[in-house]
Amino acid sequence: MYRDRHLTLLTDLYQLTMMYGHFRAGRHENRVVFDLFYRRNPCGNGYVIAAGLEQVVWYIHQLSFSEDDIAYLRSLRMFSDDFLDYLRHFRFRGDVYAVPEGTVVFPNEPILRVEGPIAEVQLIESAVLAFINHQSLIATKARRIVEAARTNVKHPGSTVIEMGLRRSQNADAAIFGARAAFIGGCVATSNVLAAQAYNIPAAGTQAHSWIQSFPSEYEAFQAYRAAFPDNTVLLVDTYDVLRSGVPNAIRVGLEMKAAGQSLKAIRIDSGDLAYLSKRARQMLNDAGLPDVQIIASSDLDEYTIRDLLTQGAEIDAWGVGTRLITSEDCPSLGCVYKLVAQQFGDRMEPRIKISENPNKITNPGKKKVLRLYVNGSATADLIALDDEVYDPSEPLELFHPIHTYKRKVVQNYEIEELLRPVFVSGELVYELPTVQEIQARVETQISAFSSEVRRHLNPHEYHVDLSKPLWDLKQRLLHEWRR
Amino acid sequence: MYRDRHLTLLTDLYQLTMMYGHFRAGRHENRVVFDLFYRRNPCGNGYVIAAGLEQVVWYIHQLSFSEDDIAYLRSLRMFSDDFLDYLRHFRFRGDVYAVPEGTVVFPNEPILRVEGPIAEVQLIESAVLAFINHQSLIATKARRIVEAARTNVKHPGSTVIEMGLRRSQNADAAIFGARAAFIGGCVATSNVLAAQAYNIPAAGTQAHSWIQSFPSEYEAFQAYRAAFPDNTVLLVDTYDVLRSGVPNAIRVGLEMKAAGQSLKAIRIDSGDLAYLSKRARQMLNDAGLPDVQIIASSDLDEYTIRDLLTQGAEIDAWGVGTRLITSEDCPSLGCVYKLVAQQFGDRMEPRIKISENPNKITNPGKKKVLRLYVNGSATADLIALDDEVYDPSEPLELFHPIHTYKRKVVQNYEIEELLRPVFVSGELVYELPTVQEIQARVETQISAFSSEVRRHLNPHEYHVDLSKPLWDLKQRLLHEWRR
Repeated sequence: MYRDRHLTLLTDLYQLTMMYGHFRAGRHENRVVFDLFYRRNPCGNGYVIAAGLEQVVWYIHQLSFSEDDIAYLRSLRMFSDDFLDYLRHFRFRGDVYAVPEGTVVFPNEPILRVEGPIAEVQLIESAVLAFINHQSLIATKARRIVEAARTNVKHPGSTVIEMGLRRSQNADAAIFGARAAFIGGCVATSNVLAAQAYNIPAAGTQAHSWIQSFPSEYEAFQAYRAAFPDNTVLLVDTYDVLRSGVPNAIRVGLEMKAAGQSLKAIRIDSGDLAYLSKRARQMLNDAGLPDVQIIASSDLDEYTIRDLLTQGAEIDAWGVGTRLITSEDCPSLGCVYKLVAQQFGDRMEPRIKISENPNKITNPGKKKVLRLYVNGSATADLIALDDEVYDPSEPLELFHPIHTYKRKVVQNYEIEELLRPVFVSGELVYELPTVQEIQARVETQISAFSSEVRRHLNPHEYHVDLSKPLWDLKQRLLHEWRR
Repeated sequence: MYRDRHLTLLTDLYQLTMMYGHFRAGRHENRVVFDLFYRRNPCGNGYVIAAGLEQVVWYIHQLSFSEDDIAYLRSLRMFSDDFLDYLRHFRFRGDVYAVPEGTVVFPNEPILRVEGPIAEVQLIESAVLAFINHQSLIATKARRIVEAARTNVKHPGSTVIEMGLRRSQNADAAIFGARAAFIGGCVATSNVLAAQAYNIPAAGTQAHSWIQSFPSEYEAFQAYRAAFPDNTVLLVDTYDVLRSGVPNAIRVGLEMKAAGQSLKAIRIDSGDLAYLSKRARQMLNDAGLPDVQIIASSDLDEYTIRDLLTQGAEIDAWGVGTRLITSEDCPSLGCVYKLVAQQFGDRMEPRIKISENPNKITNPGKKKVLRLYVNGSATADLIALDDEVYDPSEPLELFHPIHTYKRKVVQNYEIEELLRPVFVSGELVYELPTVQEIQARVETQISAFSSEVRRHLNPHEYHVDLSKPLWDLKQRLLHEWRR
């Protein structure tokens, strides 16, 4: 349903002014290569889960300037008629290589590599960044929360449900955020539109207003049970969890048991979740209802979940809203899109972006990313020039890109080439996986990394090295610039 | 363009399960009143600027279940055929009262009041909250940044441009965020689609990649000037601001001057903006180019802008991205939607939501919000029951809703009734203002409040009182509950 949305003008004006500038200078067909990458991991995490590629694909697919778009651009009185005519026939004819969604990536690794005529490669920058930044951020945040829930020793299968729609930064943030959260490992979303669009399980029970709208909590519970006898989940904190909610839920649960049905779960949405869940668990057990699950919600995130579990909270499933859907403690991922090579005559030449801040100096040239596995474990990533060839049967010496005395030799390794062709000469050549397949890829990817890299606080920095030819090229360009 | 977007399923599943529960119990036509309000000001601000109503209007306008929606809901195997048939004929027939966009609002004041059959009032909760939460948050954050820029004594007319698209939480966050930022007082957006949709000025120049793609910075500047001789803004920090960027810009500026043109501005996007802007200003002045403006960008927000101005930064316009479009330090506003009255038989009875946290106890009943002005200054807001009548020629004693000994008498006041009819019995009766009109309303509204309320840090808490009848009602319901 979101495939055909017309978003061609979802770009920064400067992309259009630059396109026009290149057009005026007769350079708009000059070929360039841009890399999309980020520089710093968000939320203190050790990695990012790449997501958003499907949205990029449909966006590029729909790219064309409608007559309305042309008329609007004409009204700005900035562009000449021949340029507007060029836009009228515009389509994207470039190459896009990308890491599959659900791939674990690290700072400075190209997540997308775009090659083509400069005007086309430039136009897509802003929207592509927004899509990748947003979905990768939420997938990564969701992963942190899901892993926190999985530290539950009493309930190792405890799950996370995304329910942030109302606090999302508008509809797309909710819809694509729900998708990204599922990729990160959530099992369901409360957002019906997202559930429909991506075939994600939808979850939901009742609000406090449901309980309030009945003369008594017990009657509200019974009315809900009548409507959903196979999936009765009761919200127990409208009045008083332990004195009213849980006793009424137990009363309904016992009646259901007597009728051959079963109460599925109770939900606690406020108060001290550790204390209340432990007391509620005991009360349910004492009443002979040990199978009734406890779902908790209320301003949760990975830190609160871990803390509650440390205190022995008896919680089987977590509903997480605001802090997941906005990635509250780090609401943006800083992916950038940088020129790394450019056509001069018939040669493609590497370009470097200099900065006073050494961390902001780019890696030049058209590149690829190789993940090296030894016995199935991800050992290091190597950013290399695209035409380099490696023979995994030969030992390979890696070195730290800044502290070059730090070296290590890998042997008997396997290579996973992370960047895959998505568009070639503007044609889509990539088969988009389902979100279920992407979610499964996340599990496989993450399991290949050591627990030190996966730690939530102060994770170990995974090795991402530059190949010798790339390192040499970078040094050469830096020294040329110095002169 | 966003008017007809089909978003009926943009709701939490529990709204549909509750609708079904009410339908099964034969109660779905029972009338209720819900208030939408927030409890705590975001970002340490003293108020919120209400925004998002236009989006609510178009959303309610499009509400209807398509055959695809019905088929999807059927596939969930949760709902009966007669309910699905009811959905097929669903339309919203309720009343919506709302404060106009651009209104200054305070905690606990109804921003929206929705009355109608419970099933209809319930369905819209999630999306309406998302729209109001998001746009009000960004309008408020933008206002803080705009007011920081206006503290510029050297350049009192200094302006803020929104340019956060690439770091936004997806397309809608960028588009409606640009709209909200304009409402808050930004003068332009970099986002072309938002500029087109809302007739907001679009702004943009060139990126570092433009500069890099030419053999020299000077040639890049000249090519840009050739394309935009009337609007030449040059990005001067690609290589070295003071040793390369500004000297090259001055060279182009002097050539333009000689040709009867004029260089409009330079833009600095990195480095120490205080130091660089002061040095650049001096260099431009010394070269006889005192009218060339300086635009700054780079991780700006209200705090950084104030600090830079304290240090005498020479900046005429600010481009603000990430921290505005995500409201980075407070990425969500916590509006809630609570049942306040309900039909029993043919009487509408007030309802209260109890909580252990006194701040979370709701104000019961169908209410209105009166803003009391004395000599044009906003003196206090009064939340009153909808049927109360006030005679502004009589003195009115107000009292603090918790510390009731705090009293004050207002005389010779004028009343602004904040809630206006938007939908009556499902019919749209409200004329939507343009964003320009809304932006103007913000200026008028804010100018009525004292500078103490408008302060960015630790603002004075504006008086929001309950009327005597409302306070009495609340006490009565609390005591009834206690028994």
